[in-house]
Amino acid sequence: MKYNFRNDYTTGCHPDILQALIKYNMDEEDGYGDDRFSKSAAALIKEKVQNEQSAVYFVSGGTQANLTIIASILKPFESVIAADTSHIYVHETGAIEATGHRIQTIVSSDGKVKPADIQLQLNKFEEVHTTMPRMVYISNSTEVGTIYNRAELVALSEFCRQKELILFLDGARLSAALASSENELTLADLGKYTDVFYIGGTKAGTLLGEAIVINNPKLQDNFLYHLKQRGALLAKGRVLGIQFLALFSGNLFFDVGRHANNMAQKMAFSIANLGFSFLASTTTNQIFPILPDKIIEELQKDYLFYIWRSVNEQASAIRLVTSWSTDESAVDEFINDLKGYT
Amino acid sequence: MKYNFRNDYTTGCHPDILQALIKYNMDEEDGYGDDRFSKSAAALIKEKVQNEQSAVYFVSGGTQANLTIIASILKPFESVIAADTSHIYVHETGAIEATGHRIQTIVSSDGKVKPADIQLQLNKFEEVHTTMPRMVYISNSTEVGTIYNRAELVALSEFCRQKELILFLDGARLSAALASSENELTLADLGKYTDVFYIGGTKAGTLLGEAIVINNPKLQDNFLYHLKQRGALLAKGRVLGIQFLALFSGNLFFDVGRHANNMAQKMAFSIANLGFSFLASTTTNQIFPILPDKIIEELQKDYLFYIWRSVNEQASAIRLVTSWSTDESAVDEFINDLKGYT
Amino acid sequence: MKYNFRNDYTTGCHPDILQALIKYNMDEEDGYGDDRFSKSAAALIKEKVQNEQSAVYFVSGGTQANLTIIASILKPFESVIAADTSHIYVHETGAIEATGHRIQTIVSSDGKVKPADIQLQLNKFEEVHTTMPRMVYISNSTEVGTIYNRAELVALSEFCRQKELILFLDGARLSAALASSENELTLADLGKYTDVFYIGGTKAGTLLGEAIVINNPKLQDNFLYHLKQRGALLAKGRVLGIQFLALFSGNLFFDVGRHANNMAQKMAFSIANLGFSFLASTTTNQIFPILPDKIIEELQKDYLFYIWRSVNEQASAIRLVTSWSTDESAVDEFINDLKGYT
Amino acid sequence: MKYNFRNDYTTGCHPDILQALIKYNMDEEDGYGDDRFSKSAAALIKEKVQNEQSAVYFVSGGTQANLTIIASILKPFESVIAADTSHIYVHETGAIEATGHRIQTIVSSDGKVKPADIQLQLNKFEEVHTTMPRMVYISNSTEVGTIYNRAELVALSEFCRQKELILFLDGARLSAALASSENELTLADLGKYTDVFYIGGTKAGTLLGEAIVINNPKLQDNFLYHLKQRGALLAKGRVLGIQFLALFSGNLFFDVGRHANNMAQKMAFSIANLGFSFLASTTTNQIFPILPDKIIEELQKDYLFYIWRSVNEQASAIRLVTSWSTDESAVDEFINDLKGYT
Repeated sequence: MKYNFRNDYTTGCHPDILQALIKYNMDEEDGYGDDRFSKSAAALIKEKVQNEQSAVYFVSGGTQANLTIIASILKPFESVIAADTSHIYVHETGAIEATGHRIQTIVSSDGKVKPADIQLQLNKFEEVHTTMPRMVYISNSTEVGTIYNRAELVALSEFCRQKELILFLDGARLSAALASSENELTLADLGKYTDVFYIGGTKAGTLLGEAIVINNPKLQDNFLYHLKQRGALLAKGRVLGIQFLALFSGNLFFDVGRHANNMAQKMAFSIANLGFSFLASTTTNQIFPILPDKIIEELQKDYLFYIWRSVNEQASAIRLVTSWSTDESAVDEFINDLKGYT
Repeated sequence: MKYNFRNDYTTGCHPDILQALIKYNMDEEDGYGDDRFSKSAAALIKEKVQNEQSAVYFVSGGTQANLTIIASILKPFESVIAADTSHIYVHETGAIEATGHRIQTIVSSDGKVKPADIQLQLNKFEEVHTTMPRMVYISNSTEVGTIYNRAELVALSEFCRQKELILFLDGARLSAALASSENELTLADLGKYTDVFYIGGTKAGTLLGEAIVINNPKLQDNFLYHLKQRGALLAKGRVLGIQFLALFSGNLFFDVGRHANNMAQKMAFSIANLGFSFLASTTTNQIFPILPDKIIEELQKDYLFYIWRSVNEQASAIRLVTSWSTDESAVDEFINDLKGYT
Repeated sequence: MKYNFRNDYTTGCHPDILQALIKYNMDEEDGYGDDRFSKSAAALIKEKVQNEQSAVYFVSGGTQANLTIIASILKPFESVIAADTSHIYVHETGAIEATGHRIQTIVSSDGKVKPADIQLQLNKFEEVHTTMPRMVYISNSTEVGTIYNRAELVALSEFCRQKELILFLDGARLSAALASSENELTLADLGKYTDVFYIGGTKAGTLLGEAIVINNPKLQDNFLYHLKQRGALLAKGRVLGIQFLALFSGNLFFDVGRHANNMAQKMAFSIANLGFSFLASTTTNQIFPILPDKIIEELQKDYLFYIWRSVNEQASAIRLVTSWSTDESAVDEFINDLKGYT
Repeated sequence: MKYNFRNDYTTGCHPDILQALIKYNMDEEDGYGDDRFSKSAAALIKEKVQNEQSAVYFVSGGTQANLTIIASILKPFESVIAADTSHIYVHETGAIEATGHRIQTIVSSDGKVKPADIQLQLNKFEEVHTTMPRMVYISNSTEVGTIYNRAELVALSEFCRQKELILFLDGARLSAALASSENELTLADLGKYTDVFYIGGTKAGTLLGEAIVINNPKLQDNFLYHLKQRGALLAKGRVLGIQFLALFSGNLFFDVGRHANNMAQKMAFSIANLGFSFLASTTTNQIFPILPDKIIEELQKDYLFYIWRSVNEQASAIRLVTSWSTDESAVDEFINDLKGYT
């Protein structure tokens, strides 16, 4: 096997992060997030989010972030609205329902949620006899690689505030989103337009870790108890703090996303030049080219990637994912091999 | 502040583990535990456990291990019996009850559970109207630093099998237990006498991670689904695999425990020589000397440690914990300072 | 207000049931279902179900039956497949999710579930990362008044057994279903083709109560513990036993359904004769005529009923429901008034 | 078997309640508690509770009331403090833990909870790492037949308000408590000194039903959603409304308690006169005489009752319970038979 384009977590951590882990390894610090690294990283993130009221917490992974955030906010009879492509609906083994809450799904072709879709769910509400929609879950970039532009996020935010819905943005792929060539959003926008979001570390070059940012002060009460109860509070919280410090001390978080996006978009450009079309148009580190099944078979001999879905009897869309560690030579080799098969 | 004796997770990871993380950082591997490191580490542990039927899984932390194991095994109306000193009862913010299960506590002065205590709980059972006890939770070393000898573990194991109770051993502190000068147990004994146990990495020099070993095949069914649903399955599972590989390729797991124990026992010996008594007699890395409150105040100026509980109007028991990273000079300095105050 | 066609629980209990409650009121019996009435009623139902392995339990209401049955059977990571019109999805305030389980919905125009719909859900399964479908929930009559014929039930049953799915039939409206002029099914069929079902009392003339019949012996283990834990075990279980004894000692259960159906179908016949169409064709006690909004407004002055949904700018479908206590004169008066408005 | 002294739910309902059920049986009313009976009964109870802010809800049974109230109030990481004799701890099959919450028990010899006991539990609190005690559960009369006097309730109430704890009184046996010869409390006191309580119908002569009274307005928000989600909202809510209307239109609720108490106390008086002692001194409808095991064996031939616990090698305490339907002749016969055996 030459290269792995299956996902953005095939390698360890970015060298700069590794250096930070090495540098601070022997420093003595308190546990459970009370270390100076976690405090500094939280302060740094808060600064970039530009919301005085925000609070920052670190956890190990995305599903853990999603289930803890949602379960900490919703009352037993409240539900969350999400796209039918959303990670919480498709790939978390019912983690949200396991905390007692329904996900009300909306059909989404591009992975995004729009106010009109939410309204359709709100229309289904009947007093006492149905769950009460209380939260909207979105992801940026989405599970299919698309991103929200500013107007879309602002519209969602305004709609949610008007309807008293909590807006929660899953940023497991935020590095790729904010580094996209078409991105219009900043961390400060997320601090302003969402009630809560998280910044993915795992897909942005850390060994593990997501930074939860709760902007709405009403949602911060006793959040640490929820984290502890869900097994999401690491004894050596420093491991998360050090890594996020490395990500946000300089521009690493954005550089990592830019490289990943560039690699994917280089592949996309070449694939398009070869005359192939795509399931969706993306500007991030996930691309979904449609290729003849025969060519896919050939590529599979040398490369790891997922077949996303069959498009017709002779062709399928595949998913190619790049990361901070994708070498340009791997991309070139893939393109070259693909040219050879066409 | 000179030194921190609060717990065994004040520093990062053992240098050998750090070397392994550095060495394998750029290797491409599959996610969610399907990497070659996790597979090798699991195979290695299984070899030491000497039970062909055992299955090994890695998770981030102890509470996560406890809640996932217990919730995966118990039916909704079943309960777990544990000591009133147990971590699941005292320090996990109700994580077990949050999964729907009662902990039936037994009074324990030494942190251990005995068959007679379990029987008292079984006697409370009334058909339909009470929960049904189905599991016994023990920890080794216990939360108060004591360890189980072979006869105790065998007796518990036999009693549990006779009563159709699952025996679960929390090994967050297993490194200290197995390295104790009085230890009689091996990993193979745990593979034979328990249904499920876990091997703590966090307190044994890893950045994070616990290795769950399920010996009873009936309890292994779909365990990965439980892990995923609880947010306990890391995308970069390799991070756990690499570290446990480092712990168990040689003797690191035991060396780490031995050093921690030696440091604590050196302090205990000196404190005893100064004429002070202890709340309990331990042979691991936690000691509980009883000191005059005035001396404690002095020590607190230079050292971090917990005051465990008041013993009388002028004296309290404190808890001193050491780890793989405790330098002997820190121990000597503490002893020297204490001598100065007496 | 002249009459109430909103639902089938507008009055108390059928006179025969009331007589039984009066007759046995002062008899001393044990509690929690251990009374002779509950035992006799269970034996009687088992006889009619004609399955030696079946076990019968009584609970207060439908949601309670649904949530207890489903939560007692599914493991934490397992889900239930149901129509998007199903009571558990539409009208139980997230009761199933509150027990930790996802409902995977299929789009259904007639309230029924077909094997092909189930297969579509099964196709979405991905190991470890999705919930595992384990149960299929159907209702008869459905929430939109339709019924399953024998071929449909047999096909579902065979499909489920082949796919190792539990088939659960919600019989809250079973009285109407089995008394329908087009019904082909018997209680014995339900005993044969489902794993578990329940017989609705509330909509069949009792003050309250549903009889759960678990045919699959594997699903009976400790079911009483689940009932007790969910608050579903009445101290005076006799209240349920006496009423079901009255329903099944003779033909009352079927007579009640027949009368309700006759009343609804008489209305349907007359409404059709007036030239109006229906949202769906039903043969039970629920009909969904489409009427001009102006006429609906007139009718609302004298009758209680739900407007089901708007059909076009000038017309809506309404739902009319009848029961054992619907007087034919009420039906006649409604028809007469409707004629007057057309 | 002559008579049943096992519990206070051996018969159906009080004749006055039965008359009310008969009288209103055919009246058409809306479902789910929106009937005029439930509304009138709620208004009547509110009047007696004398708290303008109170809200009243009806449910089927005690466990259902307990679990819904507790789960609706506590956040996931909060716990409830209760006596180790409490119904929620001893006889509800872990129903409270099944909603995710820990019960922190205090040792109680008389079934009551005192402020000092609560304080001991509060002392165990450690930020983030333990559950947060938020509620105190008491019962009146208690599970061992004792009652709270005014000073005790006021002290508890003041203590709880000072500590920001919710005070919840389980009144499954409230009829007996308020009718006790030593009772000092009124429904208005419960409206003033508790945050929430419920009035037991099942043990006070109804077929089923408990009336939940939430005095604290902050705890009323969306309570109906919780009821519906837990399967606690009866379609024919009228059944509960009619019965509570009968209980509280006149003095029936108190008369029922007085008769039950009188019968038990008559037995107690005679048993004491025969020279026997009691496990505890009670003034309600439960008595716990200590009798020689040989006499108990004789009595068991003719009477049903529970052996509470062994007192020494030759004697045990038994529990005798009376109700509104206990005939004085049964009491006389029991006493007479007992005399014969001594």
